[in-house]
Amino acid sequence: MEEFSQEMLHLGKKAKDASRILATLTTKEKNVALEAMASSLELDAENIIKANQKDIETAREKGLAEPLIERLTLNKERIQGMVNGIRKVASLPDPLSVTDEEWVNDNGLRIGRRRVPLGVIGIIYESRPNVTADASALSLKSGNATILRGGSEAINSNLAIAQALQTGLSKTHVPKEAIQVLSSTDRKYSNELMRMTDYVDTLIPRGGQGLIQAVKNNSLVPVIETASGNSHLYIENTADIKMAADILFNAKTQRPSVCNAIETLIIDEQIAEIELENFLQPLKEAGVEIRGDRKTKELVQDILEATEEDYHEEFLALILAVKVVKGYKEAIEHIAKYSTHHSEAIVTKDYQKAQDFLNDVDSAAVYVNASTRFTDGEVFGFGGEIGISTQKLHARGPMGLEALTSYKYVIQGKGQIRE
Amino acid sequence: MEEFSQEMLHLGKKAKDASRILATLTTKEKNVALEAMASSLELDAENIIKANQKDIETAREKGLAEPLIERLTLNKERIQGMVNGIRKVASLPDPLSVTDEEWVNDNGLRIGRRRVPLGVIGIIYESRPNVTADASALSLKSGNATILRGGSEAINSNLAIAQALQTGLSKTHVPKEAIQVLSSTDRKYSNELMRMTDYVDTLIPRGGQGLIQAVKNNSLVPVIETASGNSHLYIENTADIKMAADILFNAKTQRPSVCNAIETLIIDEQIAEIELENFLQPLKEAGVEIRGDRKTKELVQDILEATEEDYHEEFLALILAVKVVKGYKEAIEHIAKYSTHHSEAIVTKDYQKAQDFLNDVDSAAVYVNASTRFTDGEVFGFGGEIGISTQKLHARGPMGLEALTSYKYVIQGKGQIRE
Repeated sequence: MEEFSQEMLHLGKKAKDASRILATLTTKEKNVALEAMASSLELDAENIIKANQKDIETAREKGLAEPLIERLTLNKERIQGMVNGIRKVASLPDPLSVTDEEWVNDNGLRIGRRRVPLGVIGIIYESRPNVTADASALSLKSGNATILRGGSEAINSNLAIAQALQTGLSKTHVPKEAIQVLSSTDRKYSNELMRMTDYVDTLIPRGGQGLIQAVKNNSLVPVIETASGNSHLYIENTADIKMAADILFNAKTQRPSVCNAIETLIIDEQIAEIELENFLQPLKEAGVEIRGDRKTKELVQDILEATEEDYHEEFLALILAVKVVKGYKEAIEHIAKYSTHHSEAIVTKDYQKAQDFLNDVDSAAVYVNASTRFTDGEVFGFGGEIGISTQKLHARGPMGLEALTSYKYVIQGKGQIRE
Repeated sequence: MEEFSQEMLHLGKKAKDASRILATLTTKEKNVALEAMASSLELDAENIIKANQKDIETAREKGLAEPLIERLTLNKERIQGMVNGIRKVASLPDPLSVTDEEWVNDNGLRIGRRRVPLGVIGIIYESRPNVTADASALSLKSGNATILRGGSEAINSNLAIAQALQTGLSKTHVPKEAIQVLSSTDRKYSNELMRMTDYVDTLIPRGGQGLIQAVKNNSLVPVIETASGNSHLYIENTADIKMAADILFNAKTQRPSVCNAIETLIIDEQIAEIELENFLQPLKEAGVEIRGDRKTKELVQDILEATEEDYHEEFLALILAVKVVKGYKEAIEHIAKYSTHHSEAIVTKDYQKAQDFLNDVDSAAVYVNASTRFTDGEVFGFGGEIGISTQKLHARGPMGLEALTSYKYVIQGKGQIRE
């Protein structure tokens, strides 16, 4: 028997008890609770901003980089964004209102596959305090209790947000322990969280590769991996020139810091010889640093040579690796070797190549003639997302409310026994 | 970077390469391969029995218990059972022939959720050599490559079966590395198998609690837990007496060694006072040892007192724990505390209690007025099963072919970029 601290055992038990109640709530009761959370957050905006300023001061003292401080910062507008996010979740269909299938088997048993919550979801995340509100809302709507463990740099903000959400819940039928934030960011406690299999049903890490690997390697609780995106755009010989140029520019530059932006352009040799320079010019002008293979360097002036590491790297910045290939097969092999199985796209006019690409590429989202930037729960029509899964078990790609549920079989008989 | 042995790296790469080919096969190609596997196994029966006899000799020398030797033993009939099992899998619908959903989003992108294989499935199992054939067939039909690691006591049998299956495959389009058995049962190799996240997509342990816990604790590859069943039957006050007696007898005695047999009877005090002795008499006559709480001992002669451990124990034998409760709430609490979330049943005539039980009990299969013994992929109508999951992620309850698949989003556009 593993030793857990009293604090964590207490937290775990409270979450488990809350999850039992959450599982039995009606859609209306949950929506009322979400509205109470949203209103309370709205009312508490000033307090939250004060708490956030403490975090920002500490961050500056510690010399945190400006982009990270920017991500950490809360203002009225961003808090309103969280409030609207919670209200949006309230408006989504209840994922538990569904029986996926129901049938009668040979023994006359009526067997139904009914959606149920996962139970208690642990979220371990970095930096952005809005995750505290977003993840709490999605978990609650899907009937789950949440235990949140944010980064130390956002601890005051996260606690203030959770406090506001709990104040909202205390006016409803939902126990306030449906949402709990670890008040200490000591690793001792997050390590316990990863091992409390009696109280935590699923862990979702959200953050950089380091965080996700650490959770994967240490957790005994099943993990849903929301990993990084080393995404590829493949411009095939028959591609429409303007379409290819537009998609390339969009997929690399529209928001380079996110996981569905591309990191590598793969391009057929024939079209590269004519168009590669034209394709890359607007990117260069937008400040993108190009790192190409030997052939790319022959075709385009003033670029760096790509190393093996460049093809593996998720830059999340205005850097693009380029690989010129002899044709479809080499393109597919490059993707199979370097991709993190997030999002990949082909631009082509060739019907068969389009079909083959959709079949052959083993990624969560595979595109023909569209930007990879669309891999997103909201854009897909799920109303929101808890993250984008790059694993194959349970959920893959953008995870909406359904990804936070499981199912059980309910079997109704009239005295059947097994012969 | 972790160090892996050359043998395991070689095996992993071969499996991964095979999985890429498997993912693109047609249903017909897979069914032809399954038939080739079945025929080859049929032809090789004598060789397999010879190999099995070696295992049995070693087992006897080591003093393995008779029931375990019985489970290990292969004869013509059991081999024919495996052959028929493979043919049955060939006759099942292809789980990859499905697009779960397809819709057009606000951007005009056509988004389809298409079933794909998991990739490479590792199976770590004990004792019964038939798992080698069963798991290989189910994996292949669902487009997955398999790496099998059986117990040391069955190593010769498992290798002979795999050899026969591979011989069958070598006459088809399917690479024989679709099915590989670890030729050494040295733990060093199974530990590597659990950490080869680049080559193995999912691990399914099949066996006792010790094995499953060891895999869960050591694996970096995502695990589907097929855990034990500490299952409960609750006889509620309004239960039909004959139905309750029949279900109790069936659920405990029809095959006590399996996970869907019950271990504990929970019974309301009122009905217990009148009927408990009658309910238990046939079980006693069938050799069932009764271990009851204080109230049970007042009502029934010559039984042992149940300890706290008895309520936690999966006996898998002719032993029944009994708990007399004051009513529904106490029954539900007992199940929540001791159940392994496999299968639980209520016998009742009360409509509301039946509905409440289906809602309140958090197990993979929840029954009203039927024996728990029906929790089985075959009985449910899935045509077979790779195991029964007691976890909530990915798959729960009996796992048929669909549980061995994932999905990907295929997105077809006409040049869309994100604004």
